[in-house]
Amino acid sequence: MTREEASTRDKILDAAARLFHEQGYHATGIATILREADANAGSLYHVFPSKEALLEGVLERYVQLLRPVVMDPVENAERDPIGRVFALLEQYRRWLSPNGFVMGCPIGNLALEVGDNNAAARVLIDRNFANWSAVVRSWLDAAGNRLPAGTDRKRLGDFVLTVMEGAIMLARASGSPEPFDAGVEQLRRYFDLLQEQALTERRTGPGGKSASRAAKSAGTPTRPARKQSSRRRT
Amino acid sequence: MTREEASTRDKILDAAARLFHEQGYHATGIATILREADANAGSLYHVFPSKEALLEGVLERYVQLLRPVVMDPVENAERDPIGRVFALLEQYRRWLSPNGFVMGCPIGNLALEVGDNNAAARVLIDRNFANWSAVVRSWLDAAGNRLPAGTDRKRLGDFVLTVMEGAIMLARASGSPEPFDAGVEQLRRYFDLLQEQALTERRTGPGGKSASRAAKSAGTPTRPARKQSSRRRT
Repeated sequence: MTREEASTRDKILDAAARLFHEQGYHATGIATILREADANAGSLYHVFPSKEALLEGVLERYVQLLRPVVMDPVENAERDPIGRVFALLEQYRRWLSPNGFVMGCPIGNLALEVGDNNAAARVLIDRNFANWSAVVRSWLDAAGNRLPAGTDRKRLGDFVLTVMEGAIMLARASGSPEPFDAGVEQLRRYFDLLQEQALTERRTGPGGKSASRAAKSAGTPTRPARKQSSRRRT
Repeated sequence: MTREEASTRDKILDAAARLFHEQGYHATGIATILREADANAGSLYHVFPSKEALLEGVLERYVQLLRPVVMDPVENAERDPIGRVFALLEQYRRWLSPNGFVMGCPIGNLALEVGDNNAAARVLIDRNFANWSAVVRSWLDAAGNRLPAGTDRKRLGDFVLTVMEGAIMLARASGSPEPFDAGVEQLRRYFDLLQEQALTERRTGPGGKSASRAAKSAGTPTRPARKQSSRRRT
């Protein structure tokens, strides 16, 4: 690919990502993407033979941008590993609140709009979510014994994403940041309680009564998710 | 409205609600609704002069069905107030998992699809969410001192909705119930920790060191006292 082709490709991906986020994938016409990217149909179809291929290009770009655009600024601004979780959420608030959360989460929207009937896109959406959670998990790992010994840090990282996506949806539905802030506040309580339990654990030692209670309520070793759901079903 | 008109109205609302959930509001054509409702255009436009009016009818129906279809079965099946929270989530799992969560939450989908540009629909979507949370909050009120004294039960009820909507979105995106189960599991840890704190509070008394730590981490010290009085009803 020549430098000019690469530049055209970038402009097309920028315009497509912006338009998909603003108005959705299905509602966005190729003509609008071309006009906003200042490109012609020939150069588009040269790099992206179909609208589906363009969507995959946009999702691959989100995978690439996760580190430099989303996570590195948080890591540079905040050293405390648990503080980073909340700095990340605060960053999304800054991005999304200027227009009342009306555009929602760019990946979340695409997940809902196109996830069902495009297998390649679904894999890339999953990869975006998984990579996001994996960075949060690395922070939770770095928090060491500030979280209870039995804490499943992968699941806790996934939960941060779950809360964020739910909070963005409700903020968008209400046209206000209030549900987002309320969701973050509850997540903070949860982290506060986990840290309290870890503190008790460190005070009383791993064999202490409090420690075993903490592991029971915050960890997962004795209660895999499958068991839980099947237990409830019966 | 005659009995026949009311029956036609119900059939139209049933078909519209089902189709909006299956394929979205915008993607659903009036002709399909009429065919599935076995109704004609004249009778539709007699009761719903526009597609927007039909959407509002569907959302009003969801408001009416919340108690008999969603909440009463949970209250009848489970007496424990905190158990009801998780029985409710389990009920959604039963409803949504047979087709891999692919259809998502009926209200959440409409929130994302039409919330932005239809003020009347947005009010009704908000009412659905608010009424849902209010029932959960009534259970949390009934849990009395099993939750820490400072717990903001309205916000905790809202949080249950936030987690559920985020978990449904991620389950839908992955085509698997696993993210839903994982989200519920983390919410259960949070409730376990809240109950542990409440237990510590009851043991050490409201002036104890543990109790003040519990209030700090689980409550919202800035909430007005008026809010707190409703908490003590139980």
